[in-house]
Amino acid sequence: MSMYFQNYLIKMVQPELIKRRDKIRWLMDQQNIDAALIACNINLLYTYGQIISGYLYLPLNSPARIFVKRPNNIKGEFVFSIRKPEQIVEILQEQGLPMPQKLMLEADELTFTEYTRLANLFPESEVVNGTPIIRQARSIKTPLEIEMFRRSGIAHDKAYSQIPSVYRSGMTDREFSIEIERLMRLEGNLGVFRVFGQSMEIFMGSVLSGDNAAYPSPFDFALGGQGNSNLPGGANNKPMQEGNTVMVDMGGNFNGYMSDMSRVFSIGKTTEEAYAAHQLCIDIQNEVINLAKPGAVCEDLYNTAIEMVKKAGYADKFMGIHQQARFIGHGVGLEINEMPVIAPRMKQELEPGMVFALEPKIVLPGVGPVGIENTWAVTAEGVDKLTNCEESIIELQA
Amino acid sequence: MSMYFQNYLIKMVQPELIKRRDKIRWLMDQQNIDAALIACNINLLYTYGQIISGYLYLPLNSPARIFVKRPNNIKGEFVFSIRKPEQIVEILQEQGLPMPQKLMLEADELTFTEYTRLANLFPESEVVNGTPIIRQARSIKTPLEIEMFRRSGIAHDKAYSQIPSVYRSGMTDREFSIEIERLMRLEGNLGVFRVFGQSMEIFMGSVLSGDNAAYPSPFDFALGGQGNSNLPGGANNKPMQEGNTVMVDMGGNFNGYMSDMSRVFSIGKTTEEAYAAHQLCIDIQNEVINLAKPGAVCEDLYNTAIEMVKKAGYADKFMGIHQQARFIGHGVGLEINEMPVIAPRMKQELEPGMVFALEPKIVLPGVGPVGIENTWAVTAEGVDKLTNCEESIIELQA
Repeated sequence: MSMYFQNYLIKMVQPELIKRRDKIRWLMDQQNIDAALIACNINLLYTYGQIISGYLYLPLNSPARIFVKRPNNIKGEFVFSIRKPEQIVEILQEQGLPMPQKLMLEADELTFTEYTRLANLFPESEVVNGTPIIRQARSIKTPLEIEMFRRSGIAHDKAYSQIPSVYRSGMTDREFSIEIERLMRLEGNLGVFRVFGQSMEIFMGSVLSGDNAAYPSPFDFALGGQGNSNLPGGANNKPMQEGNTVMVDMGGNFNGYMSDMSRVFSIGKTTEEAYAAHQLCIDIQNEVINLAKPGAVCEDLYNTAIEMVKKAGYADKFMGIHQQARFIGHGVGLEINEMPVIAPRMKQELEPGMVFALEPKIVLPGVGPVGIENTWAVTAEGVDKLTNCEESIIELQA
Repeated sequence: MSMYFQNYLIKMVQPELIKRRDKIRWLMDQQNIDAALIACNINLLYTYGQIISGYLYLPLNSPARIFVKRPNNIKGEFVFSIRKPEQIVEILQEQGLPMPQKLMLEADELTFTEYTRLANLFPESEVVNGTPIIRQARSIKTPLEIEMFRRSGIAHDKAYSQIPSVYRSGMTDREFSIEIERLMRLEGNLGVFRVFGQSMEIFMGSVLSGDNAAYPSPFDFALGGQGNSNLPGGANNKPMQEGNTVMVDMGGNFNGYMSDMSRVFSIGKTTEEAYAAHQLCIDIQNEVINLAKPGAVCEDLYNTAIEMVKKAGYADKFMGIHQQARFIGHGVGLEINEMPVIAPRMKQELEPGMVFALEPKIVLPGVGPVGIENTWAVTAEGVDKLTNCEESIIELQA
């Protein structure tokens, strides 16, 4: 990150954080919630601008209070050092704040034990699940967040454009993945891959070649891959075969914002069918993007893709073979799987400020995966593309 | 992993899993718990041998039943395909299993929402927290788990021994970290760094040089490091300085088991004090290890270290400066922070089969971190060292 941009961020950060908190407050108010106690890393990063071990207490009509266990170098007007959450209530009382009548906690993110401990601090309050509200607020990005995504996309492009240079003949998919991970890290990738929900695990992303792309996953990712029993998904440590395709789908976490992009390469030339199926995915992308504007309904976008796939005779190979993912796109943000989801029966409409990844993909037996994924920001008039590198199948040469 | 070892694992896996489940059952029985419903990745990996999206139902006196949502390629005598957890109860009834009187769920790991959903499936049952029981069972490793650790240690050693070869003069700590991450990956590291508890995040480990080692962390790691606001901890992207030390502390997740090891390097020669303080940490390690055998009490091991540090005049620089970690060691296993913890007031005794990391470390202002970390398995008579590469400060040369 350049020093110029760093300074820009510092100047931007206070009004930005207030804007984000006010988005959450607006949604709280609609449900008569008069305070939130935020404890999870990602939501602290969103509302406080950094990760701490502690809590952000967000009253509807009063400034946020920060309660910090660690690190011990955080100071500020509304910052209080605590050893344990039980101290929060007495500090709120000293501050003259009333106990909330209706409090929200991150029930879809906190463990049962932690949630119960925090809820018990407020025995007089009704306690409700705040996760959906925070996720809804987070789904509409601020201009600064869009700018973060734009910069992430540029770094992501830069790393991907160097991929052909690290290919060596006879490489396994795993060795190829390792060199791509290094390119991503050198361009600034933070490494961690943040996912909403406890069950999905992945390292930096996936590299899938040949029939491994059809291997079913325990997780709700677009494609699976064998990986191994200790970490299912992704590369399976076999040499990549001449004529096969390989899809690179790495999370672009360069500054907290998870840009998402997939590109396809071939080991030498691949089959005519692979080029045609790849073009079909690009056509689907273009058709869906053509419809993607404020007011567009997610299920309509999904159905548009499915109709094109059926017409082309690829319904049984779309988004996997033995197990098919039931979505073609997903919101991205601080986590890889935010709102909205572009999937069947999703009535949600696109709104300006949403950022989503669209990833129509086809798996060809004996050949491998083809298709495309880019990250898009919804504007007042349509969408802006945030990931911009070459989309055709790129031939890797020894 | 060699094919030989792979086959060995497959032959070992069923009796191994039964042994692990029986360890949990034995602890359940002591608390009159007659069934466990296990839903979290790590505990599924422990009891089922692989990660699935689904559940393992463990009755006290009947074989485990597996309920799988994804992937769709898992079959077996006691395996049932489900779409949602609500189907579990009717399948148990079809199987002729009684509803549990006292059921345990992973309350310290499941989200509040998921825990509540699962608990509601068993309205007649008393539901209790099963996390401490499973963690206790996991803290005593089986011979196969010790063997996995031994192999992880060998790969860890192999990666670390190559570290001097990737150093280049003028490198930032982050660039150095990236090359070490690549070495770890090439030796088979899975990449993911698994931590118990929701709040601690780290990429593959930390590389700390100079005064950055004193930067306080929001997390309960031995040392902090600035990292950045989006991912605190570790390297802060500054060039490593001549005369400074750099500590490499990467998680050795080569096969699911997190061997843990820290080694110190210097950019050219470092100060006399650094060599002396480093030797003090090695002396502390040797003294503590001398006492470490079945029956040794964790707080006694901790106090032994603290007395040596005080006597040498380093109490204010031990385990950090501005913020000091209050432990010198921790159990390791499928996660980096298992039981036991070698810390004040910990009355727990070492038992054969426990595996722990011991990490006495000192931070020297203007110089950087020194100290040592190795992973040890408790045997009937003492401890076995699982990480074995060079312990002295290794001089990096351009």
